[in-house]
Amino acid sequence: MGISLGYNQYGKAECHMVHVDRSTPVHRITDVTVTSQLIGDFADTHLTGDNGKVIATDTQKNTVHALARTHGVGSPETFALLLARYFVDGFEQVTGARQEVNLDHWERISTTEGGPHDHAFTRPGSEVRTCVATKHGAEETVISGLTGLTVLKSTGSEFHGFPEAPFTSLVETDDRILATAVTARWRYLGTDVDWDKSWASIRQILLERFALTHSLSLQQTLYTMGEAALAAHPEVAEIRFSMPNKHHFLVDLEKWGLDNPNQVWFAADRPYGLIEASIVRDDVPPAPGAWEGITGFV
Amino acid sequence: MGISLGYNQYGKAECHMVHVDRSTPVHRITDVTVTSQLIGDFADTHLTGDNGKVIATDTQKNTVHALARTHGVGSPETFALLLARYFVDGFEQVTGARQEVNLDHWERISTTEGGPHDHAFTRPGSEVRTCVATKHGAEETVISGLTGLTVLKSTGSEFHGFPEAPFTSLVETDDRILATAVTARWRYLGTDVDWDKSWASIRQILLERFALTHSLSLQQTLYTMGEAALAAHPEVAEIRFSMPNKHHFLVDLEKWGLDNPNQVWFAADRPYGLIEASIVRDDVPPAPGAWEGITGFV
Amino acid sequence: MGISLGYNQYGKAECHMVHVDRSTPVHRITDVTVTSQLIGDFADTHLTGDNGKVIATDTQKNTVHALARTHGVGSPETFALLLARYFVDGFEQVTGARQEVNLDHWERISTTEGGPHDHAFTRPGSEVRTCVATKHGAEETVISGLTGLTVLKSTGSEFHGFPEAPFTSLVETDDRILATAVTARWRYLGTDVDWDKSWASIRQILLERFALTHSLSLQQTLYTMGEAALAAHPEVAEIRFSMPNKHHFLVDLEKWGLDNPNQVWFAADRPYGLIEASIVRDDVPPAPGAWEGITGFV
Amino acid sequence: MGISLGYNQYGKAECHMVHVDRSTPVHRITDVTVTSQLIGDFADTHLTGDNGKVIATDTQKNTVHALARTHGVGSPETFALLLARYFVDGFEQVTGARQEVNLDHWERISTTEGGPHDHAFTRPGSEVRTCVATKHGAEETVISGLTGLTVLKSTGSEFHGFPEAPFTSLVETDDRILATAVTARWRYLGTDVDWDKSWASIRQILLERFALTHSLSLQQTLYTMGEAALAAHPEVAEIRFSMPNKHHFLVDLEKWGLDNPNQVWFAADRPYGLIEASIVRDDVPPAPGAWEGITGFV
Repeated sequence: MGISLGYNQYGKAECHMVHVDRSTPVHRITDVTVTSQLIGDFADTHLTGDNGKVIATDTQKNTVHALARTHGVGSPETFALLLARYFVDGFEQVTGARQEVNLDHWERISTTEGGPHDHAFTRPGSEVRTCVATKHGAEETVISGLTGLTVLKSTGSEFHGFPEAPFTSLVETDDRILATAVTARWRYLGTDVDWDKSWASIRQILLERFALTHSLSLQQTLYTMGEAALAAHPEVAEIRFSMPNKHHFLVDLEKWGLDNPNQVWFAADRPYGLIEASIVRDDVPPAPGAWEGITGFV
Repeated sequence: MGISLGYNQYGKAECHMVHVDRSTPVHRITDVTVTSQLIGDFADTHLTGDNGKVIATDTQKNTVHALARTHGVGSPETFALLLARYFVDGFEQVTGARQEVNLDHWERISTTEGGPHDHAFTRPGSEVRTCVATKHGAEETVISGLTGLTVLKSTGSEFHGFPEAPFTSLVETDDRILATAVTARWRYLGTDVDWDKSWASIRQILLERFALTHSLSLQQTLYTMGEAALAAHPEVAEIRFSMPNKHHFLVDLEKWGLDNPNQVWFAADRPYGLIEASIVRDDVPPAPGAWEGITGFV
Repeated sequence: MGISLGYNQYGKAECHMVHVDRSTPVHRITDVTVTSQLIGDFADTHLTGDNGKVIATDTQKNTVHALARTHGVGSPETFALLLARYFVDGFEQVTGARQEVNLDHWERISTTEGGPHDHAFTRPGSEVRTCVATKHGAEETVISGLTGLTVLKSTGSEFHGFPEAPFTSLVETDDRILATAVTARWRYLGTDVDWDKSWASIRQILLERFALTHSLSLQQTLYTMGEAALAAHPEVAEIRFSMPNKHHFLVDLEKWGLDNPNQVWFAADRPYGLIEASIVRDDVPPAPGAWEGITGFV
Repeated sequence: MGISLGYNQYGKAECHMVHVDRSTPVHRITDVTVTSQLIGDFADTHLTGDNGKVIATDTQKNTVHALARTHGVGSPETFALLLARYFVDGFEQVTGARQEVNLDHWERISTTEGGPHDHAFTRPGSEVRTCVATKHGAEETVISGLTGLTVLKSTGSEFHGFPEAPFTSLVETDDRILATAVTARWRYLGTDVDWDKSWASIRQILLERFALTHSLSLQQTLYTMGEAALAAHPEVAEIRFSMPNKHHFLVDLEKWGLDNPNQVWFAADRPYGLIEASIVRDDVPPAPGAWEGITGFV
């Protein structure tokens, strides 16, 4: 026939991992997405399905986690070379490796009183300032907000005390990563407002409350954020939040004799928790129509 | 202060689950994405962080899986009502529930000789027919292809025999779901080709080979697909594939005394396996420049 | 210094064009996205900003449109080669060309009485069947629907008679492309429904009404679709639509002496029209809470 | 029948507009995406296709542009209220309006010598730091880079002198918005590099060169950026760019007697120009294999 296998490579793509350097109380986080690919003597699995030389892609993923624990991540280049050398030097059938390490940038949340926070971060990115003004006859309503405000705490978050319902298997924790992408919308009373000043102040309050609240649940964090915004801004009637709980799962490395003291985390995409709530000022009438058509919240 | 908690709900969003009805050899698959949300007496967790009434979102996810095992999924409406009733009737603190069930449609792959296949499916969707023609001076090259051809086999796929490398924890299996979204590109010899006919034939060959190959690895499936395309189409010099291994993990229900004979699967997003290879005709020269800038493949 | 310009290419990316072959009443549509890139003697513009040899990317886009008018599109390969030859053979400074032509597949809408329609099409793709069931105490509500049902009519759509308001410049037309991606959600009365049968029937009614309605506005088409669904399905209380008007603009080729009798269209992304409406059965009470949190509609 | 039209609204969605305040040499830009929707007496177009009361969605888009010229944009809230009042107060059949104005945030590029730039901006967002390390046997190659670095100049960009090829209709300009999202990848010589320092320095050079170069073509800007990076970093062998020309079209308001001195721009999505080039150090050998599989560049 004259048909044969040409260039080939295989591996695990888009391992999204967050490494937390907790060597001092000022945590440093490294958020990488790693794609590992191996090149070598892999004709058998293509031609006959014999996997005797195949380093499973699952193993490649585990290796990413394990080497992050034993060596740290450092710069993307350092980690990519570490992985490439590990695979090429360690396995006879692996003649080449291609390791892609992409880094997402996080900044410390800066609080008014405390400056840059030790363990609360925000990722500049898809944040958008939002506004919906509706006018029905003479009735005007303005709902301002923001979406895509991504924040993360590398400690200072617990979750326990939930009941043992049927199908419960979640383990209680007193130290987890708490991460979310805040969508918040708040309704103003009237239109005589310094819009830019009010928006900037509320945004800062949300960030600070997220950073400074020792969290017992994402619901509690959410409520604290909203309550503080309303308390400081009498021009706001209510505020609504939709906050995904972007799960970070601590990687279990015990089976290879490695501990993992809250350092190496797998950042999951789906499913995710979803917490939605409104915080309201008691003495103002609702404006349900004004909220119609605003996606991302009830 | 006059500030209080308004409407709120919480739950687990976008549980992507595939249910396989294996009651006959003609499998039926149901691919749903479920968002479960509960409404009720949840002020405590917001106000004080007391989670004593919180049905964990993780538990809601487990419930989705477990009820799929015990009751099947059926129509989205049936399953959404089942879940809503389970939560509202089963927990005093839950006064309401909102269950969203979205269904993705799959069709059976139809083979030329066998008609609709028992357990091989394709999901109409983001498939695009692709073409890149390059001309450098008098030299013309045409690379045709397709991307986003999503396919799944609910049985007929094994994966075992891989070595016990360090950090290996994957369990061998002789029956798994195999799913991928095929990106294939093939380079023609010359330009005197019945383009539409050739493309349609190759696409059908790829689908059939995916459906009819009893798979020992995704690499083997890939190679078989490419080899068959080249064998039937002498006008094609080489074909390259990029095929993610879209992992479906069998849900472990044992802790609740339920078996799961390959019926309820969690469809993961990231990371994913990624298999890339070219199949080449031996007696034709390469054309590396023609492949430059073609994303989604080496 | 020893620094110089290496390989380079430039052009216009993702020209989304729909060609309508109207040579018979049974229209054929070709939906392509073209990326044109030229290689050649373009060092000057890089080194000094002298554009004397630069075929403007805008000109490349116009060429895509013009050659579609003069030669038709045919298969992606035919059109890509046509473009590559046009540029390489026609301009001394162009020594190479890379032409990418991706094709989106459309199918004819099939009507119960008439079979495949002459000029109404649907594009299989991102369609999802949706369902939201809510239960508040004993009150159960089911809202079923679909999203991403993409449809297009290549004729049979007019738009005129709108007033000359300030800032109006739109020209009236009695023959345009009408395209949308239907999001529809309908609320059932009760839960004793054959869900699959009802859903399939409503979907077919929506498709048929889109195809068979001679449209004077997208609003009229929308209302006809909803009215027919309610008329045929007494188990449905109301139906809501969110339908973008996916604009297709007829390309003006007059400046080059070419006519364009509704054959070559530019498919625009943003902005788009957005039509949203509910069609209601008069004698049933509303259920506003059931609609909360359903995105993509008021 | 007892079927009637319920709540409805219509309009133009996602008008992406950039307003440049050029009242001083220190430009201020406002990047908004506006969705205008009107509520009122629009039953006729739904029921009979009579559009006599329909303010065309195209007219709504034009109004967004025109009011930005006559009133400026200001804060999202101010502009949304301006639009809502314009429509409700100005048209008898319009009883309500819903105006959504989302704001994207831009920051001034800061240059080492000049501080915040007058008219060069960057939008924090989807930027990712990238790295691909490959190892074939003992041969190691590191390619670092960035993607999604979005930048814009509100003046200091010209484009003219291109030839009058067939199908050319583009008008020459000596003052346009120049905007792109930089993807750059550079290959290192060796692996004994201070990765973080080198990366940060190259990123700053790219930003400064974009800001400080008076541009005669995007190609020229690109080359200047790459040349400066290579000149300052002997450890880099070559740098490749893929830079979309994100077109901003000046809105023509003349038909309503309004001038538009480079203030109101429509930000288009597709098609877009695409400029790709490599800048190379003359005396180093190429490493073509190292670039394989790197998407987003030839």
